[in-house]
Amino acid sequence: MTDQTPVSRRAGGRSARKAARAAALPDHMRPIRPGLSGGTYTPLTQEGMEKIHRAALDALEEIGLSEAPASGIAAMEAIGARLGDDGRIRFPRALVEDVLASANRQITLCGRDPANDLDLSGHRVHYGTAGAAVHMVDVDARHYRDSTLQDLHDAARICDTLDNIHFVQRPMVARDITDNREMDLNTIYACVSGTKKHIGTSFTEPSFVPDALEMLHMMAGGEDAWRERPFVSNSNCFVVPPMKFATESCEVMEACIRGGMPVLLLSAGQAGATAPASIAGAIVQAVAECLAGLCYVHAIKPGHPAIFGTWPFVSDLRTGAMSGGSGEQALLSAGCAQMHKFYGLPGGAAAGIADAKLPDMQAGWEQATSNVMAGLAGLNMVYEAAGMHASLLGFCHESLILGDDLIGQALRCVRGIEVTEDNLSLDVMRATCMGGPGHYLGSDQTLGLMQTDYVYPALGDRTSPKEWNENGKPDLIAKATARKEAILATRSPARLPADVDAAIRARFHIHLD
Amino acid sequence: MTDQTPVSRRAGGRSARKAARAAALPDHMRPIRPGLSGGTYTPLTQEGMEKIHRAALDALEEIGLSEAPASGIAAMEAIGARLGDDGRIRFPRALVEDVLASANRQITLCGRDPANDLDLSGHRVHYGTAGAAVHMVDVDARHYRDSTLQDLHDAARICDTLDNIHFVQRPMVARDITDNREMDLNTIYACVSGTKKHIGTSFTEPSFVPDALEMLHMMAGGEDAWRERPFVSNSNCFVVPPMKFATESCEVMEACIRGGMPVLLLSAGQAGATAPASIAGAIVQAVAECLAGLCYVHAIKPGHPAIFGTWPFVSDLRTGAMSGGSGEQALLSAGCAQMHKFYGLPGGAAAGIADAKLPDMQAGWEQATSNVMAGLAGLNMVYEAAGMHASLLGFCHESLILGDDLIGQALRCVRGIEVTEDNLSLDVMRATCMGGPGHYLGSDQTLGLMQTDYVYPALGDRTSPKEWNENGKPDLIAKATARKEAILATRSPARLPADVDAAIRARFHIHLD
Repeated sequence: MTDQTPVSRRAGGRSARKAARAAALPDHMRPIRPGLSGGTYTPLTQEGMEKIHRAALDALEEIGLSEAPASGIAAMEAIGARLGDDGRIRFPRALVEDVLASANRQITLCGRDPANDLDLSGHRVHYGTAGAAVHMVDVDARHYRDSTLQDLHDAARICDTLDNIHFVQRPMVARDITDNREMDLNTIYACVSGTKKHIGTSFTEPSFVPDALEMLHMMAGGEDAWRERPFVSNSNCFVVPPMKFATESCEVMEACIRGGMPVLLLSAGQAGATAPASIAGAIVQAVAECLAGLCYVHAIKPGHPAIFGTWPFVSDLRTGAMSGGSGEQALLSAGCAQMHKFYGLPGGAAAGIADAKLPDMQAGWEQATSNVMAGLAGLNMVYEAAGMHASLLGFCHESLILGDDLIGQALRCVRGIEVTEDNLSLDVMRATCMGGPGHYLGSDQTLGLMQTDYVYPALGDRTSPKEWNENGKPDLIAKATARKEAILATRSPARLPADVDAAIRARFHIHLD
Repeated sequence: MTDQTPVSRRAGGRSARKAARAAALPDHMRPIRPGLSGGTYTPLTQEGMEKIHRAALDALEEIGLSEAPASGIAAMEAIGARLGDDGRIRFPRALVEDVLASANRQITLCGRDPANDLDLSGHRVHYGTAGAAVHMVDVDARHYRDSTLQDLHDAARICDTLDNIHFVQRPMVARDITDNREMDLNTIYACVSGTKKHIGTSFTEPSFVPDALEMLHMMAGGEDAWRERPFVSNSNCFVVPPMKFATESCEVMEACIRGGMPVLLLSAGQAGATAPASIAGAIVQAVAECLAGLCYVHAIKPGHPAIFGTWPFVSDLRTGAMSGGSGEQALLSAGCAQMHKFYGLPGGAAAGIADAKLPDMQAGWEQATSNVMAGLAGLNMVYEAAGMHASLLGFCHESLILGDDLIGQALRCVRGIEVTEDNLSLDVMRATCMGGPGHYLGSDQTLGLMQTDYVYPALGDRTSPKEWNENGKPDLIAKATARKEAILATRSPARLPADVDAAIRARFHIHLD
């Protein structure tokens, strides 16, 4: 009845696996990779999602949004939205439903290297940076200083080397450039010349977009090549919650849409301040605002790629200040992820934010809680996932590097538990327990799964106290600093070709050496 | 059509709420509390759980367990288990199904104070300590030293003050007591005299149990009072995976059952070493072993309270050493939680373990990942949830205190998103956006939810960089040390009554002053 073949006799299989291990694993067999599917965590019931959806439709029909620019009003009226005497534009539910039915659900965000493309279908999860931090965290000096263009470029270069950072939306502001046009253009340059992964950025004024597109055409090798594979998207705060369009950002959005740039429809309310204090209410408002944004995009260009960016944040209600590291924040982003899938839309939200000022234990638990929950909920784009401190005010290179380890474990959790006949392991249990060695060390299964199923940290320490002592009690942050310095000491493979770079520098004032 | 009543006009409701806030919140209205219900995270499908169940039944029927003591063999044979010529005892599936049908599903773990009782029904989640660390982590000196009885007593005293630590299973070994009998008895004394929460402990030899029961009777005020409300449970490693009974521990278990002590059936395999390397396989083996344990308990005393303690751990397969802080570990414990609920049994598993040697960022992400996932999966007893470092070898008081903050956020996540008409917030959105203040600060809803829905960290820092700088850049660990010293400087309300204490000290050699 039972298979008593000892493990050691099956040497053929074992040596074959050993040979396989000697070669690098093909991408699809790596333990973790971009685009693993979440969806096993569902904080909302189906009924709860339907209630949120209906409340959002009510809000769009009854409250609507104020402050749309003239161009947007004209375009949205043309598809059936109604401008009231109070200046608010309202959306009949039939319009919203039509827009939802025809929305673009097949979005791929391109990298400069196609190997970095992100497929935002289903519950596929991707982690990356984002934000607008104004400080750089100097961990050695325990000091916050103004962030610079070089800091931003360095962040992009670091991200380029980190497997678990899948895209690079600009995480901080180059405060050493005072002219906004030059800042926006140099932001693009600093990111694109640092990484071949997909990039997100924003624009201060609509009039800056044409110059940016000109630069991107040069980087892509012409307008057609750019439009074929736009490797930069526009992170667009099209709304000033509650329920007001951000006039100028909407004009930026129109310009980006016409220029072929994917748009992140970013609604960044703050529960208890600019959004209802209840988690469900903050989600309702974010969903309503993003549905309005989707109608806007549809009115300008049906089917243009738009990411449903419900990014509600949380207030610490004692002070009114933002708290990005709270359980409430983790729930908001996970609940939003579920609403994206309720609509079947590619979506994004914020997670991984630390309120902690430094990459300490608090930062670890804050970043892990929301990153893990966002991933398990199947959030397509997890923005601000690494490096963010002080409730988004500070960015830290060391933390970014450690975040790669943290997100690696989160991705392992997203991958989940595979239950196959092989994995149930009855055969190996029989062979081990009855006449076998009485342990699983060195069994074929163990050796095989070691490479395909287990994630090993790059900097996280798993030594015993004895080994740790013998190693001189290495400090986690010091290890991250050493890694940062090693990365930045190498020549970046993401640099632009010399002729392209020279042409860009001739046409634009580039502040990086 | 729309309600434009400004928020400020509804002053009656607001002043009533202000009055309510002035009073302390009743327990059921606190944002977080012991026994919140998880279950929104389901890493296993129904089909996956059924496959795991069938594989476990196959393993019990075909492989069985070796090494049961004579008393256990006799008892288990009497209910239908079969001893093979190979010394393995096997369990026909009909027997396992009968035992499952009649298992005790109504377990309350008692505290010395009934306010600390734990109801293990449904997906109710409780976090607490556990383990057998042999080192104490001195964070100031970055040093691991032998753990002592005083360290254990201090840990119990600290736990007694922490809202989010719901039970105190002995987390470390009193290495300053060399006699095992005295160590076991003093372990109970050190824990019970430090906290009125439920306690878990273990015994080195079955012959130590009668003395322990005698001490517990003295503490409870007689055997009847003890049996009415047993406030200590036996954490029992009844199995040495794979699929072998731990002979002596089984004898301890029998003695504890007869003494009226609830039993934690603890199966602590290590995936890749003493359990299959696949996550599903490690769960199969743990489930099979705990089902065997449940049959054993049933054979001794049907209906005796037993916690289904599938505690599979993870090997770092590069070294074979344990890794408690990995994503694989988080998945194992969450998957086990789901299996407990598949059977409708009260269950426990390990989470919150750090591989990190110190309470640093790595510790934060390791502890958060598994604690959050265990809670969301609805694990009744989350053991080892705080204070554990170096893959269970070290315990840290500062980390325990910080763990209370971390678990507070995890519990907020477990509580989840309530979708009610009130929470959907359409009325407050209308009042805010149309003719209202244009923000939610100071609204009735915001002020009310501030106390009932938001969790504020005790030591976690949410200040701005500016405030943080003005506050002298406080260090998280230093704050935890100060909190520890403040707790230990106060007289513990959990001390035993003086007469009871004197009687115990007269009867037993108590090593604590």
